[in-house]
Amino acid sequence: MDYFSGHLANLVTQLGRLPGIGTKTAQRLAFHILSMPPEQAESLAEAITEARANVRYCKTCCTLTDAEECPICSNPQRDHETIMVVETPRDLAAYEKTGRYNGVYHVLHGAISPMMGIGPEDIRMKELMRRLSGNVKEVIIATNSSLEGETTAMYLSKLIRPTGIKTTRIASGVPVGGDLEYIDEVTLMRALEGRTEL
Amino acid sequence: MDYFSGHLANLVTQLGRLPGIGTKTAQRLAFHILSMPPEQAESLAEAITEARANVRYCKTCCTLTDAEECPICSNPQRDHETIMVVETPRDLAAYEKTGRYNGVYHVLHGAISPMMGIGPEDIRMKELMRRLSGNVKEVIIATNSSLEGETTAMYLSKLIRPTGIKTTRIASGVPVGGDLEYIDEVTLMRALEGRTEL
Repeated sequence: MDYFSGHLANLVTQLGRLPGIGTKTAQRLAFHILSMPPEQAESLAEAITEARANVRYCKTCCTLTDAEECPICSNPQRDHETIMVVETPRDLAAYEKTGRYNGVYHVLHGAISPMMGIGPEDIRMKELMRRLSGNVKEVIIATNSSLEGETTAMYLSKLIRPTGIKTTRIASGVPVGGDLEYIDEVTLMRALEGRTEL
Repeated sequence: MDYFSGHLANLVTQLGRLPGIGTKTAQRLAFHILSMPPEQAESLAEAITEARANVRYCKTCCTLTDAEECPICSNPQRDHETIMVVETPRDLAAYEKTGRYNGVYHVLHGAISPMMGIGPEDIRMKELMRRLSGNVKEVIIATNSSLEGETTAMYLSKLIRPTGIKTTRIASGVPVGGDLEYIDEVTLMRALEGRTEL
């Protein structure tokens, strides 16, 4: 890339390291950044530095946050006796967007994956178990519906059973608006197994 | 997005301003940046600041570069009597990648677009005309094969004609590997009109 200037080539390289950003996209982004007003480019650079330097894990639910405790955990209006277990802060965000869940969360930062060598001790499971000694009525397991997510859900439910706390799993089935014709067999079987009376 | 921390929400907002980056992608990128080693996040932020602060237009061909003159214009091995006119530095990069063009370039930074209110004075056309008073044998017009690119090519060729400098246009036709069946009629017509003897 010696037909680009050193700074530009470096910016393309740095952007190209981000996930899902290939060389072409990195170039497009780099040229866009060069055409931005300087203060806007500066805000972007600062946002990266500030976020990397200041964001940490919530001491209660382990999601990413600025303060010692995240806004959800420190909100007295939320139902702290219901904990939804998710894999990532993005999953938490997805449920928050529904605006219909008033409990709190626990972010595992991953899922058990024997294939990838990720065991229960590699995710935030200990932190969850510690929370269960407090006042908890229900643990909703909302890990992904993947092999790893299901493994994690099974493992968790076995771990929680002795405590006597109610443990539930979010429903798996045909997505709303989904066309049966295009849905895989496993999902169809799940939808059948999970059928409810009308 | 108050379920995210302030710094994280700000990073997502800043990233989401980049072209082709929606909220979901911005979130994905933001979480990736948070999981990077701090020095890598720092390099990304620095690359943005440095590039925005130090990259300028080449005094000869108007491409983006670090120095007063770009590496191509300051290379005595290149044929400075052949100028290829392109719309953007990315187009220049595309031709450089072929490794088969040894002339120099002129970057217009846009194309004439009456629809968007972009006239000849809004792009680097004056700078090109100034170069033509020097020793120039051929001007190859390599603007895009779009309405704007064609308009610019027509306008340029009329402007250059009085100087007597040879003006050519890159060929338009069926792309290599292209399947006739799936190619639009305008391209097919162009390919027919531009046919060469075997």
